[in-house]
Amino acid sequence: MVRIAILGQGLVATHLAVGLERIKSGELEPIGVPLDRFEYEIPVGRLEIVGSFDVDPRKVGKTLYQVAQDMLGGQLPVPRSLEAVRVERGIHAGSVKGLIPGARGLDEELGMEEAVEKVADRLQHLKPDVVINVITTEKAEPFETVGSVRERVSKGLVSASQAYALAVLRYAEREARRVALVNAIPAPLANDPAIVSMYESAESLVLGDDGATGATPLTADLLEHLAERNRRVLSIAQFNIGGNLDFLALTLPEKNLMKEKTKSSVVRDILGYDVPHFIKPTGYLEPLGDKKFVAMHIAWKTFNGLEDELVVNMRINDSPALAGLLVDLARISYSLLERGYKGTVYEVNAFFMKNPGPKEASNMARITAFHNLVKLLQGLGALNTGINGGQP
Amino acid sequence: MVRIAILGQGLVATHLAVGLERIKSGELEPIGVPLDRFEYEIPVGRLEIVGSFDVDPRKVGKTLYQVAQDMLGGQLPVPRSLEAVRVERGIHAGSVKGLIPGARGLDEELGMEEAVEKVADRLQHLKPDVVINVITTEKAEPFETVGSVRERVSKGLVSASQAYALAVLRYAEREARRVALVNAIPAPLANDPAIVSMYESAESLVLGDDGATGATPLTADLLEHLAERNRRVLSIAQFNIGGNLDFLALTLPEKNLMKEKTKSSVVRDILGYDVPHFIKPTGYLEPLGDKKFVAMHIAWKTFNGLEDELVVNMRINDSPALAGLLVDLARISYSLLERGYKGTVYEVNAFFMKNPGPKEASNMARITAFHNLVKLLQGLGALNTGINGGQP
Amino acid sequence: MVRIAILGQGLVATHLAVGLERIKSGELEPIGVPLDRFEYEIPVGRLEIVGSFDVDPRKVGKTLYQVAQDMLGGQLPVPRSLEAVRVERGIHAGSVKGLIPGARGLDEELGMEEAVEKVADRLQHLKPDVVINVITTEKAEPFETVGSVRERVSKGLVSASQAYALAVLRYAEREARRVALVNAIPAPLANDPAIVSMYESAESLVLGDDGATGATPLTADLLEHLAERNRRVLSIAQFNIGGNLDFLALTLPEKNLMKEKTKSSVVRDILGYDVPHFIKPTGYLEPLGDKKFVAMHIAWKTFNGLEDELVVNMRINDSPALAGLLVDLARISYSLLERGYKGTVYEVNAFFMKNPGPKEASNMARITAFHNLVKLLQGLGALNTGINGGQP
Amino acid sequence: MVRIAILGQGLVATHLAVGLERIKSGELEPIGVPLDRFEYEIPVGRLEIVGSFDVDPRKVGKTLYQVAQDMLGGQLPVPRSLEAVRVERGIHAGSVKGLIPGARGLDEELGMEEAVEKVADRLQHLKPDVVINVITTEKAEPFETVGSVRERVSKGLVSASQAYALAVLRYAEREARRVALVNAIPAPLANDPAIVSMYESAESLVLGDDGATGATPLTADLLEHLAERNRRVLSIAQFNIGGNLDFLALTLPEKNLMKEKTKSSVVRDILGYDVPHFIKPTGYLEPLGDKKFVAMHIAWKTFNGLEDELVVNMRINDSPALAGLLVDLARISYSLLERGYKGTVYEVNAFFMKNPGPKEASNMARITAFHNLVKLLQGLGALNTGINGGQP
Repeated sequence: MVRIAILGQGLVATHLAVGLERIKSGELEPIGVPLDRFEYEIPVGRLEIVGSFDVDPRKVGKTLYQVAQDMLGGQLPVPRSLEAVRVERGIHAGSVKGLIPGARGLDEELGMEEAVEKVADRLQHLKPDVVINVITTEKAEPFETVGSVRERVSKGLVSASQAYALAVLRYAEREARRVALVNAIPAPLANDPAIVSMYESAESLVLGDDGATGATPLTADLLEHLAERNRRVLSIAQFNIGGNLDFLALTLPEKNLMKEKTKSSVVRDILGYDVPHFIKPTGYLEPLGDKKFVAMHIAWKTFNGLEDELVVNMRINDSPALAGLLVDLARISYSLLERGYKGTVYEVNAFFMKNPGPKEASNMARITAFHNLVKLLQGLGALNTGINGGQP
Repeated sequence: MVRIAILGQGLVATHLAVGLERIKSGELEPIGVPLDRFEYEIPVGRLEIVGSFDVDPRKVGKTLYQVAQDMLGGQLPVPRSLEAVRVERGIHAGSVKGLIPGARGLDEELGMEEAVEKVADRLQHLKPDVVINVITTEKAEPFETVGSVRERVSKGLVSASQAYALAVLRYAEREARRVALVNAIPAPLANDPAIVSMYESAESLVLGDDGATGATPLTADLLEHLAERNRRVLSIAQFNIGGNLDFLALTLPEKNLMKEKTKSSVVRDILGYDVPHFIKPTGYLEPLGDKKFVAMHIAWKTFNGLEDELVVNMRINDSPALAGLLVDLARISYSLLERGYKGTVYEVNAFFMKNPGPKEASNMARITAFHNLVKLLQGLGALNTGINGGQP
Repeated sequence: MVRIAILGQGLVATHLAVGLERIKSGELEPIGVPLDRFEYEIPVGRLEIVGSFDVDPRKVGKTLYQVAQDMLGGQLPVPRSLEAVRVERGIHAGSVKGLIPGARGLDEELGMEEAVEKVADRLQHLKPDVVINVITTEKAEPFETVGSVRERVSKGLVSASQAYALAVLRYAEREARRVALVNAIPAPLANDPAIVSMYESAESLVLGDDGATGATPLTADLLEHLAERNRRVLSIAQFNIGGNLDFLALTLPEKNLMKEKTKSSVVRDILGYDVPHFIKPTGYLEPLGDKKFVAMHIAWKTFNGLEDELVVNMRINDSPALAGLLVDLARISYSLLERGYKGTVYEVNAFFMKNPGPKEASNMARITAFHNLVKLLQGLGALNTGINGGQP
Repeated sequence: MVRIAILGQGLVATHLAVGLERIKSGELEPIGVPLDRFEYEIPVGRLEIVGSFDVDPRKVGKTLYQVAQDMLGGQLPVPRSLEAVRVERGIHAGSVKGLIPGARGLDEELGMEEAVEKVADRLQHLKPDVVINVITTEKAEPFETVGSVRERVSKGLVSASQAYALAVLRYAEREARRVALVNAIPAPLANDPAIVSMYESAESLVLGDDGATGATPLTADLLEHLAERNRRVLSIAQFNIGGNLDFLALTLPEKNLMKEKTKSSVVRDILGYDVPHFIKPTGYLEPLGDKKFVAMHIAWKTFNGLEDELVVNMRINDSPALAGLLVDLARISYSLLERGYKGTVYEVNAFFMKNPGPKEASNMARITAFHNLVKLLQGLGALNTGINGGQP
């Protein structure tokens, strides 16, 4: 059994919880779980969500079943088995200020230092192997140096993700247990040398940052496609608009900035040269809900000086796509912990994350990253690509 | 110097001729030539077109300069250096019947057997290292067995591509010279076991079939992108419309069929399962000229049972894209011949061709194919990816 | 009460039946019914389906409730009130040969002349005011002259639509009752001078042909948009692909031709000059179901000799869109019959039909046609545009 | 002869100047000039640009020929006849601050009151019938009341457009000449009751505001298309990105706001209800140049409760489209002045402008507006739609 705790019981976490139960009951195939094309040493059925933290007053105290009914009720069947887990109060640090009325965290009751300890207490009780961070996009400055951590905590200068990262670490240390933190949001954790080094010392793992779904990984592969034909990209425009909380958050300028940074780095890393580009989450449009609209325009020079152009439009469900990746991130984390991996692991981040840690690491075409990931896991004996093994 | 002879002086060959000269004179960078991102043992400047065959009465007897002026004059500068080569009469075999009024080949004057010998004579005179087949899409049935060749030739049951393939072979045999035939059209040459085996006996190479530009390689990479996330593709629709001779040819039903076959095979090869799809060159629309319009719709199931969709629209110059690939195919052929390769080479075909030979070979994601190709060429010492070598 | 009989209980008719009941019960607003923005003298609630004819063995003998459950069951709620009507055997005339296994019509049992009389008998029993033809697209040659009708019927040289048109006429004559036939498929009825003249003699109405939903009316308005700016359209490409029976029918070449004709006429009629275009239903792709995918590319010259281009992609539910129009066509027919209109009425056809009858009539921008339609109906006192009356 | 003076010698004005000369010389047809489909009392050849004002140091003092060579030289042929007009220094009022280095206006030399008089002097010399305002998008607050004008001028609280509007007025008054000011930018002139009333008193015309090219009029017609089928629009997203000065200006937040206002008003005016929408100029991407990329997504409910969606992508040359409209606006202005029209004229603005004045006026479908415009001009005897007269 791989025990999972959730930070932020939003749409992603709720799709993860519902989807996992529907797969376990045989209602659904594990579509959208990348490695399930192959044979993985840990079947999806062995994953279990054991706890969840949030600061939304409409969620804290409710069971995952109730939360899922509220969020997905009309749209999807919600399994009764989700009644087993109840959402607990977590850390706020202002992360959803202005977005969720009445949001309140342990930090607002106890101060940040106490709140971190309290979450660590609860984790000791829940005993997760993997903790997944899917709180709403928030502003966060990396610690950079381990020395700065204590002071910033005492002054309350930490984001919710950072506070959670410290709580997971406290739990790992107290229990002398290897734990993995999977950071699926833009806050720099796997890109923060201080965090990575503390996790390494605790024989634990931090994977991240910013789960790569939607337009960014597709852009990466499209650019690689062009690069391999040596076409000269002239400009890239990419618009994203959606109606979920993450898009609402991006209407607050400082959060938008967090996204933009990770989205842009992909261009230079893959093409090897700079291209004028506009790649940004663009707007909030409530009726689109979780199914965002993406429009992309790429122009390039081809042989003999002529110009081509490509337009991509997508309607994609934002949250389930990420939830599917989290299933694999959870079981890969477990496999890596068992084999003594610690700190962060670029080969995993490079495929799953928009801003793969560690800090200096670059982006690459996802197809290449997938190839490398499969090779790593095959080497460890965790993955068996079977008869089709030659393909990836 | 790599000496190149052209079969079919249409738009692709003319872009190749013009583009090569513009690159050599420093007017253009070798954009659209895939391996020019790296250091290749044969610089583009060492390629030279030494001869050209066609059956169009508006071209036979003219210099490449005159032909290029007629076809690209208003649009692009045409270098004077193209006056050095003159288009000769080639083999028709009915390949442009109904498309080019007054087309006439050597076969119509001399019979097919004589025509093949005559082309071989001319090749002995021109001494090409590489012969590139870019005649208009034609219907062709593979020989399958070497035994059937002589009989079919004597009965005139061969397509123009097949007759040219035999002429190149005769030239190779007579001169005891290793020669490469690059087949960029759908006629099955590298997919014909008889042809491949004859080339192998002649220590020569046949690469093909059907140069992979435009929508097909992009579809391959998009499907691989989805497969790696284990999304379940539900349907694929792909339309192509353009105004060049190749699209006009496709209005003749038996030619359309040739294209459809190679375009469809990509789906099962990459996804590993069958998907209802409609992937066809769809129509001819003269004002679009060589810049075709492609529309594609792909729907898939994602995690937790929801559906996503993707629409791709492209305006791409058909002929220059292929011309850029031919530059690399010419110099790779040369490198391979020098190192004793013969028959056909899947690693090359898999990246450059829609229907990569040999016959039983499957399609794969182009990004993976590119990776394999680079590895092969690095291994041979033909390619140096330099400082960025780690990337592909 | 406006009594409606249906010819062809396919998806369109089934959406019409289900939608009408859902509107009547207050479950849905009459969205998609054009004139319901205004006040019409006959409210939607006064329409009633009283009979239905088909030749599909899976439908004949079943109630509309059962048929609707089979066709839309999982997707939409099906009202019990549809149990009141049962599908009867109609006329086949080979219209779904090769599409619906086991299809059999009265004509196959009784011969065509008898079959027409038998349908007329049933109509006398059902007493519809309006008969709506929504059978699958079929090949049909217009009678052109009244004199030719009897002979063609006796020889069996009539299509199902024509036979139905004659049956409705027989019913109107026998009962001396004004009846309206609304022809929503491409078979030329309102464009057949013989049919129109016979209906005129019977003081009855025939409206048609080919209900204008989807890409065609949108194309009309887009072209008018360009014409009004005096842009010079250079080319038009339009692809349609879907998975319903109508698209399957179009894979049979002679049916495809029926569609292509009506779709193309729009270009010259609106722009006033010919433009190279490719406007065709393009393919059948079963998983798309009734929600077709449309892709369109239009290029034009703008001021100072430059070129612009427009790409439109749509995912639209084919059948409900037509069903919504049929609601208005039924009540407009009724209003017109009451006021003595007979033969056909261009002002109605021009907005609702792809190929508006009578035969010589041309296509126009739909926005203009709508304007004219509203003016006609206001003039008759049938329509009250209320406070917003100035707008259309 | 219709004498035209230009305010702002940017891309629009330069395309206007070049295009007019190319049409006059017979090199081009008057494509993109809406009324040139018909016979207008003033042929395009009778329009003449007699003067031009700007504040860009790279333009002031140069001939239109030199400016056009600099801006369009490589792309289009520039007629020598443009040497006849020289760009003069105009009013700045900070309108291109931060956009054009070194920009300086008469107001910076003489103060605003003097600058207005100086421009009026120059207009007296140039004697234009029509003055066209195509300066870069700037922030401007309407005067609202005539009483406030003098005070705001003396305090320098006027925008460049407002100052120019006053200069034109001074010129009209001094010469007792009827003059038309055509305002093609978002600054509220025809929407400013004070300006309209002053022009009315001077027997002059002000038409505006914000020339309707590109996505906005198309959106208007698309929404009307949906409204006429009574589809319920659920959401509208529209992105615009381009590389000309106007897009660069929009990166300055207060200018973006000016555009957004006019773009949004279209939704409620046409649909008759509010819809969540995101309609904004979105970004600046230099390599796109004057050919902007537009992406639009519209979702709606159709009959029987189902959902459809439409995606539109465009690549359109921004400036020539507007230049083509200005040709007609100039000659319509002249015809209206001759017939005693004064103040502003909604029927003209409704078709040509994004934010049609006067202030309280609403937006309407452009096809309807065109219909009304043609009727007005036919009524005046200015326009003859000829044999095709029935069509619009």
